[in-house]
Amino acid sequence: MNSCNILFTSVGRRVSLIRHFYRALKDLKLNGRIYGADASDKSPAFHITEKSFMVPRINHPDYIPSLLKICKQEHIKVLIPLIDTELYVLAKNRQQFSEIGTEAIISNQEVIHVGMYKTATHQFFKKNGVKAPELFSREDHEKIKENLPLIIKPNDGSASHMVFRVDTEQQFDFFAQYVPNAIIQQYIEGEEYTLDVFVDLSGKVRCVVPRLRIEVRAGEVSKGVIVKRDDLIQAGKTVCECLAGARGCITLQCICDRNGTIYMIEINPRFGGGVPLSIEAGADFPKWLLQLVMGEEIGDVADSYKDGLMMLRYDEAIFIAPQGS
Amino acid sequence: MNSCNILFTSVGRRVSLIRHFYRALKDLKLNGRIYGADASDKSPAFHITEKSFMVPRINHPDYIPSLLKICKQEHIKVLIPLIDTELYVLAKNRQQFSEIGTEAIISNQEVIHVGMYKTATHQFFKKNGVKAPELFSREDHEKIKENLPLIIKPNDGSASHMVFRVDTEQQFDFFAQYVPNAIIQQYIEGEEYTLDVFVDLSGKVRCVVPRLRIEVRAGEVSKGVIVKRDDLIQAGKTVCECLAGARGCITLQCICDRNGTIYMIEINPRFGGGVPLSIEAGADFPKWLLQLVMGEEIGDVADSYKDGLMMLRYDEAIFIAPQGS
Repeated sequence: MNSCNILFTSVGRRVSLIRHFYRALKDLKLNGRIYGADASDKSPAFHITEKSFMVPRINHPDYIPSLLKICKQEHIKVLIPLIDTELYVLAKNRQQFSEIGTEAIISNQEVIHVGMYKTATHQFFKKNGVKAPELFSREDHEKIKENLPLIIKPNDGSASHMVFRVDTEQQFDFFAQYVPNAIIQQYIEGEEYTLDVFVDLSGKVRCVVPRLRIEVRAGEVSKGVIVKRDDLIQAGKTVCECLAGARGCITLQCICDRNGTIYMIEINPRFGGGVPLSIEAGADFPKWLLQLVMGEEIGDVADSYKDGLMMLRYDEAIFIAPQGS
Repeated sequence: MNSCNILFTSVGRRVSLIRHFYRALKDLKLNGRIYGADASDKSPAFHITEKSFMVPRINHPDYIPSLLKICKQEHIKVLIPLIDTELYVLAKNRQQFSEIGTEAIISNQEVIHVGMYKTATHQFFKKNGVKAPELFSREDHEKIKENLPLIIKPNDGSASHMVFRVDTEQQFDFFAQYVPNAIIQQYIEGEEYTLDVFVDLSGKVRCVVPRLRIEVRAGEVSKGVIVKRDDLIQAGKTVCECLAGARGCITLQCICDRNGTIYMIEINPRFGGGVPLSIEAGADFPKWLLQLVMGEEIGDVADSYKDGLMMLRYDEAIFIAPQGS
């Protein structure tokens, strides 16, 4: 049996996703262990990985060395990062992982940069003719007045933290100062979709799964449904084909207004929190990823998932008794 | 076998709590069915209740009649409401449920009122000598200036919606207008605790379980730990003993500052979202409640739970295929 040990970094609450990787290993009859790394010992996913590693915080100089040490020691074949803030430093050091036999499933630095800053994302969309909400300069008082309501959010934000809709000039004046590194974005009324895009290791888009965000809690989807719409699929394909250096799962956010116009909002070059819905629908990203890493071909998977599957989330928990009890 | 059918209203995402009630029925060898009611057909808990009832929204005039109809038709012995906004109307109509043989586990209207408005909660604490953060009038500019930072939140809010910490006078001026029905509260730096209090059907406090809120997402605890501290237990007991007309599970929020001073913040007269942690620790509120409803005594349960149990939550989901697939 082939061996394929996997290390997830910043595992946190990603229990469902990791369970799918266990299942994928089994489906493929691969002899692999799954490990987790996180800076917090209170990571629920630590309790389903076979070994858990407490590592320094992402911005600590020892972060990469500590991951390299784990990868070497545990013969890690695949490293999968799970939160935005670690992507850049991992992309920068991908070669070092490669040299010890670990394939870090991550896009290149340019792609990470495009996803990390809303202004860079916007420039990328503009340059490639992708429709996106306009950005406004805070000095452009006339335009701002005309275009209310607007969205104000941090240029480098994530998980809907510090995102405000402003309806009046007074609100604008306040939030443009209050929100750190604020950008000012056109407000688009419509339905919000996530597109889970599977990009193979050579950068080719293999599958796009649109899912409607019916309800969001703490920035993550809590109710969602697969909507297999050609225009959304094509929009996701176009964006990722323009993203030279994209690899693995790319998570796009877009809004579709009442006329059916699609506005691209965000690029997150990692597995999104709601991806278990796409996987359950048949888009088996974990299996495909492992197949590609093991040198197998996956064939045409573009149409591999079913329309209409709905996900309703609720809280499950791991309970830990105090030591010595 | 005795029969004890249970109806949960506004079941939403309360899967864990309902599973504990199934377990309690089994432990007690009671012949009971569990039903759920909600205004949304996208309630995850609908998929674990034996029957699910779509009902009008809480503020609709048909809400109570529709619940009465279900209770009569399904021989419901116990009705357990799960969200704040339905408590008042249910308390007001409790007699009607009683007349058809349904015991609504709910406090009286006075208790609901005290919990519903932060100003009423504060008056209640003050009247009963319970330490709580001060409230300020927005006209009292000098005091506000002296007491920054402050908390601004809606008088009738829930789930941390529209709660802002303000650090400057400028922020104060803005948020005092921006937040609907704003109240201005002293900011207490410290650790936030929830106290799950079990009050029997005659209003006697039987058990208080303090749990530290380590991490909160969307207003609900996502990581927590039982902290069996006498001062917190006593504080919870004192509050609920002053609450004439309290029944069932009462969920209190408090903050404990670095000197160990406890400030009471909130009273929610219903099962809290994080109560599965207390139940897992041994405070078997579901079992006790059913025993009391069936006329059994529960003995001295004050010390029935273990210290130090930790809960780490993650997302689980129910997946629903489209009809006809």
